[in-house]
Amino acid sequence: MKKIRITLVGGGTGLSVLARGLRKYPVDISAIVSVADDGGSTGIIRDQIDMPAPGDIRNVMTALSDVETKLENLFAYRFKKEALGGHALGNLMLAAMYDMTGDFAVAVKELSKILNVKGTVIPSTNISPKLAARMEDNSIIVGESYIPEVKQKIEEVYLIPNDTVATPEAIEAIEKSDVIVFGPGSLYTSIIPNLIPEGMKEAIGKAPGIKVYVSNIMTQIGETVGYSAADHLDAINTHMGQNVIDFIILNEEDIKGRISDYYNRNDMTAVESDRDRLGEMGATVITDHRLVEIDGEGAVRHDNKVLAEIIYDIALKEISTLQYKK
Amino acid sequence: MKKIRITLVGGGTGLSVLARGLRKYPVDISAIVSVADDGGSTGIIRDQIDMPAPGDIRNVMTALSDVETKLENLFAYRFKKEALGGHALGNLMLAAMYDMTGDFAVAVKELSKILNVKGTVIPSTNISPKLAARMEDNSIIVGESYIPEVKQKIEEVYLIPNDTVATPEAIEAIEKSDVIVFGPGSLYTSIIPNLIPEGMKEAIGKAPGIKVYVSNIMTQIGETVGYSAADHLDAINTHMGQNVIDFIILNEEDIKGRISDYYNRNDMTAVESDRDRLGEMGATVITDHRLVEIDGEGAVRHDNKVLAEIIYDIALKEISTLQYKK
Repeated sequence: MKKIRITLVGGGTGLSVLARGLRKYPVDISAIVSVADDGGSTGIIRDQIDMPAPGDIRNVMTALSDVETKLENLFAYRFKKEALGGHALGNLMLAAMYDMTGDFAVAVKELSKILNVKGTVIPSTNISPKLAARMEDNSIIVGESYIPEVKQKIEEVYLIPNDTVATPEAIEAIEKSDVIVFGPGSLYTSIIPNLIPEGMKEAIGKAPGIKVYVSNIMTQIGETVGYSAADHLDAINTHMGQNVIDFIILNEEDIKGRISDYYNRNDMTAVESDRDRLGEMGATVITDHRLVEIDGEGAVRHDNKVLAEIIYDIALKEISTLQYKK
Repeated sequence: MKKIRITLVGGGTGLSVLARGLRKYPVDISAIVSVADDGGSTGIIRDQIDMPAPGDIRNVMTALSDVETKLENLFAYRFKKEALGGHALGNLMLAAMYDMTGDFAVAVKELSKILNVKGTVIPSTNISPKLAARMEDNSIIVGESYIPEVKQKIEEVYLIPNDTVATPEAIEAIEKSDVIVFGPGSLYTSIIPNLIPEGMKEAIGKAPGIKVYVSNIMTQIGETVGYSAADHLDAINTHMGQNVIDFIILNEEDIKGRISDYYNRNDMTAVESDRDRLGEMGATVITDHRLVEIDGEGAVRHDNKVLAEIIYDIALKEISTLQYKK
């Protein structure tokens, strides 16, 4: 039997968490990952080697590995000795493969084979782009890590150089998927950066698979403060030039009383479900009372098992409907 | 059915070549590898990080991998940029694991899991020893790579520090093996260094498995010039303090006319089969007219397929004899 093909689109930790949950199901997972990150150690290595950002790629490879903890430790290891640099070993491994193959997507594929990574990890673009944002006041901020820092309303994000092209591997994954999942993750700095390389918008627009957006549970400082679920979806559709999302997975439980003060102090609130506007955009709402996991300290996140279960159910239903239609 | 357990003992390229040949058979392979090498890039990294020699370990891991060429390229990769050092990436990976685990044998085991290496690669000792040789004139040469350079007759080799202990993993492999294969490889700098860490001699002496020595085809400059097959075996037995080898695999074809001038110029001749003396030492001779591979330029080596086939046959026969005895 042909396995269901699921493509995840995102970056940051959100994508890794979902990949880890889905790994347990009999599905073919591809993950299209943003490579515009310029913060932390990824920023440091990009200063020395002009390459797409390795950090999120590493995290997803780790999440799809059978020896997850071991690989995570190896990837994260930094030599103390000055002579060997302060680089994370995983970044060096990706840099080495990139230098040998001259193609970042091929480098990720080859390293994935060596490390016996299940699924396919695909950088959204093969060059080393910068993410830029135009704010409501028309000011331009360049650099993924700087965008949330100005704490202004974002109108649009784009890549520099302007003609950054999507990897053929990413386009192919989109074309062949039964289900395409956007998120969870930072809206403007993890998800949308994958949609804007040339060729991607058209591929997603034409793709036969069903498109699912996983809304964040909390709004995010410097990116989505005050945003409802429909505002999130609207940002995606605006960058896509059309309504593309078939299903939106969101939380409708009242969690106000259980979240930590950290959120209140930073104007971060639960993302509100505005079903009417979502319906107007053509997105069917899917929710589950077990979707949110709140730990003892009031930190909020998706329950990755529940999220994976929901996505697998959507995929199964859709596949059987399609077979029935034939 | 329990798989036949074969342990290879050696170093250098000989061990890798045999491992590659045996990988195709349904056997459990362990490889005990000498870590006293101090030449080339291995020497350079040992100058900066006090660790057992990673080079031969890497080669055997590669030979036991399903993605051999890819892993070989990644391991061998060196960054051109000064800031990232001139180190082979594989040495850095082993150094990182060694630093994280504090135990070289565990480091090799963990990295093998991450890289999905079949079989078990075991350093013969966990510390960073130097190999020393006492020559016929009682002079002492320290450093594996220097020993062959003096081109004198070697009386004995030993490790510094003197109390270097064998890894428990190596002892266990010896105890549990159905077949233990010594060589092919440099007699004094690849094979014997594995026999001298404390605990090894006793383990091999008591081991129930059959012991096979694969004789080199050509004598080796600075190590075994003028040696017959029995002289090779005698060197092993002398270091072991007893006769331990049950079978010796050697070449008896006349290859004189087919070898390159390089050998003649360096006093390297075909190793002579002196069956009477071998018999006195308790070793049964096994030979095959296809054992030697000579390329168009007259370079001589073992045919790794034939060698693996011979060893697998010995193992099968021995196992069935043992079952019959029970």
